[in-house]
Amino acid sequence: MSKQNAEILCIGSELLLGQILNSNAQWLSEEIAAIGLNHFRQTVVGDNINRIKDALIEASNRSEILIITGGLGPTSDDLTHEAIAIAFNSPLEEYKEVWETIKLKTNANNKNFSPSNRKQALLPGGAKVIQNQTGTAPGIIFSPHKGFTLLTFPGVPSEMKSMWHETAVPWLLSNHEIEGSIYSKLLRFSGIKESALAEKVSDLLTYKNPTIAPYAAIGEVKLRITAKAKTIENAKDLIEPIETEVRKRTGDLCYGINNQTLASIVLKLLLERGETLAVAESCTGGGIGTQITAIPGASKIFLGGVIAYSNLTKQSLLDVPQQLIEMHGAVSNEVAKAMAEGVREKLKANWAIAVSGVAGPNGGSPTKPVGLVHIAVVGPKVCDVSPAQFSNYLGREGIQTLSVIHSLNRLRLHLRSRK
Amino acid sequence: MSKQNAEILCIGSELLLGQILNSNAQWLSEEIAAIGLNHFRQTVVGDNINRIKDALIEASNRSEILIITGGLGPTSDDLTHEAIAIAFNSPLEEYKEVWETIKLKTNANNKNFSPSNRKQALLPGGAKVIQNQTGTAPGIIFSPHKGFTLLTFPGVPSEMKSMWHETAVPWLLSNHEIEGSIYSKLLRFSGIKESALAEKVSDLLTYKNPTIAPYAAIGEVKLRITAKAKTIENAKDLIEPIETEVRKRTGDLCYGINNQTLASIVLKLLLERGETLAVAESCTGGGIGTQITAIPGASKIFLGGVIAYSNLTKQSLLDVPQQLIEMHGAVSNEVAKAMAEGVREKLKANWAIAVSGVAGPNGGSPTKPVGLVHIAVVGPKVCDVSPAQFSNYLGREGIQTLSVIHSLNRLRLHLRSRK
Repeated sequence: MSKQNAEILCIGSELLLGQILNSNAQWLSEEIAAIGLNHFRQTVVGDNINRIKDALIEASNRSEILIITGGLGPTSDDLTHEAIAIAFNSPLEEYKEVWETIKLKTNANNKNFSPSNRKQALLPGGAKVIQNQTGTAPGIIFSPHKGFTLLTFPGVPSEMKSMWHETAVPWLLSNHEIEGSIYSKLLRFSGIKESALAEKVSDLLTYKNPTIAPYAAIGEVKLRITAKAKTIENAKDLIEPIETEVRKRTGDLCYGINNQTLASIVLKLLLERGETLAVAESCTGGGIGTQITAIPGASKIFLGGVIAYSNLTKQSLLDVPQQLIEMHGAVSNEVAKAMAEGVREKLKANWAIAVSGVAGPNGGSPTKPVGLVHIAVVGPKVCDVSPAQFSNYLGREGIQTLSVIHSLNRLRLHLRSRK
Repeated sequence: MSKQNAEILCIGSELLLGQILNSNAQWLSEEIAAIGLNHFRQTVVGDNINRIKDALIEASNRSEILIITGGLGPTSDDLTHEAIAIAFNSPLEEYKEVWETIKLKTNANNKNFSPSNRKQALLPGGAKVIQNQTGTAPGIIFSPHKGFTLLTFPGVPSEMKSMWHETAVPWLLSNHEIEGSIYSKLLRFSGIKESALAEKVSDLLTYKNPTIAPYAAIGEVKLRITAKAKTIENAKDLIEPIETEVRKRTGDLCYGINNQTLASIVLKLLLERGETLAVAESCTGGGIGTQITAIPGASKIFLGGVIAYSNLTKQSLLDVPQQLIEMHGAVSNEVAKAMAEGVREKLKANWAIAVSGVAGPNGGSPTKPVGLVHIAVVGPKVCDVSPAQFSNYLGREGIQTLSVIHSLNRLRLHLRSRK
């Protein structure tokens, strides 16, 4: 059987019981494609040492690289490293520096020290450690025999992702024969559907190098441009004219690249302009604030705001007149505008966003159905107030998420247009 | 190798490229558990006939039942039935009644008739057809040799689901020896680490029926209790004494079951008490409000609050005295308490939560390091103010998430203790 390149093995009975969605496999698949490895198989097995062992041996006979997630925790059903030791006859050894780090971390948390954490310092002899900056479970890079390397990661997505980027990707790029270099750039779009974006660039989607592929998520579409060339610089040179062409056709719809978010772009634009932002959120309940404050340095531009969830809160903290609410209803252009103006005035902010809508599943009416959301963006010489109607099929969470995205995108367009 | 029961094989290159999430695998996993089949492995391969064939043969040597999704469409990369024909030496035959149905459906759908649809009437000889009421692609139930049966379904979730319920489940229940039913219950814990919880119930973790397995996520640990018995009712009876024992040992650490969240429990407790909540959030930036308002019906108990991200906002909207901030710093018990009292007073709420901390990565100092978060819970006869120190290894997002979780959990404990 001819050698293939990379496989994924996800370990965890919760996956086989359908208790969680295997989002790790999707995330890793995108990453594997992005760095230019082939990927021909994914396997899921439960927390059973013999079945893990069998899957390991099978993969080692089929592929050169095996990416493993899950089973690195401190409890007795975390068996990944033990199964690797048995499968490849590489007994577990206590890694002193790993144990010291675990002790430090568990003390740093001021929690009682737990002896079961010691298990996490037992790793197959000869393995290289992948540091885990956020959790206690380290991963390993281990080549039990020539031409086969496995990498282990915790099942906790945030830990897996940072370990992947910090250690695994550099190792894979420098130690694995990838024919030439692969470079990939993600363009992010807001305010357009996947099918409409695909139509705008349909001729480009047939290109072989660079390849261009669209991905859709809620409120966002991404285009990944991936080029393969002798060097990274050459690959970047291949991408550049395509990116220029895509941007020419899509204009302001493209809001950012790679790991940028609408919130990080808004923050960057406000910083450049030396301006500040405040929010008044009803149906989003703090979601806009959460997105903005997720970005380090948000305090330089974000003053805060009001979660004006009840009508009394709108009145007492934002001075929205009771009469206005009675006349137009809380979900209206008039009230959204008054909320934005109120918070802008109270906090002396340059810009304010206000959102008032019906997130559902209840509270809708024939004139104000579930999914109707009024958004106001108020700033220097700008007063942009209008409703959006999101599909109630999206559910409460989807409507709230889209309300946050649309609000941030509207603000972004105003910040861009008034340089 | 001893026979196992059921496996899932998902076919589609889009899964290996990470373009879609494998939600079919999760759905089928839950269904397989619900009808009482064992499920020990999931495999994903792309649209490649040899790799599909290999995966089929391997599964047929390992399991008695193989559930297959994907690759039944009309295009040239839909290869599932062709691969089955090759793997098990069962040449494809045109199923006349299937072809008639496809012709009817494509006419009925007012679609142009496509010759490639004819391919969908080619099925391995001897296979029983699973009718597809909504799409054109039929599935099959096929036993290429004694003791091994495969079932195929389209990758389109709605078609797969209705075919599963209408044809596959009745067939599986009447043709396969299923030893009883499986029932599973999730207990959710806050305020304890996975390792510490596992130690409290270490003797129970060795049980075979019910089995008990811990899972960790950020700020939360779950214990899944799964029982197998003749009927669902019998399985529930097996779980009950174990749950009672776990709850006895863990007390208030267990906050809920199955899909409940800390926010949904807080909402439920407040509803029962007929009381309301307001929040004043600094470093969490709206995260507590977002969690609460994610729950339908939040408006019955949640009045809103203030995202008091800047010191001026704390002063102007919450009446926190400037002197207090200058004397103790914004990240202090004194200011957190003043924020909670301020928002409680302003919004006439029964309860208020306030959070002020250093989420990082910058802004820390020797006396107020990154991860230091002061949390205040103020309510009728309750004024609970104290700092928590989260590890800066968690990063900004982790510190913000844990701050929200700890705040909600503290409020929950007060709401429980004062009945």
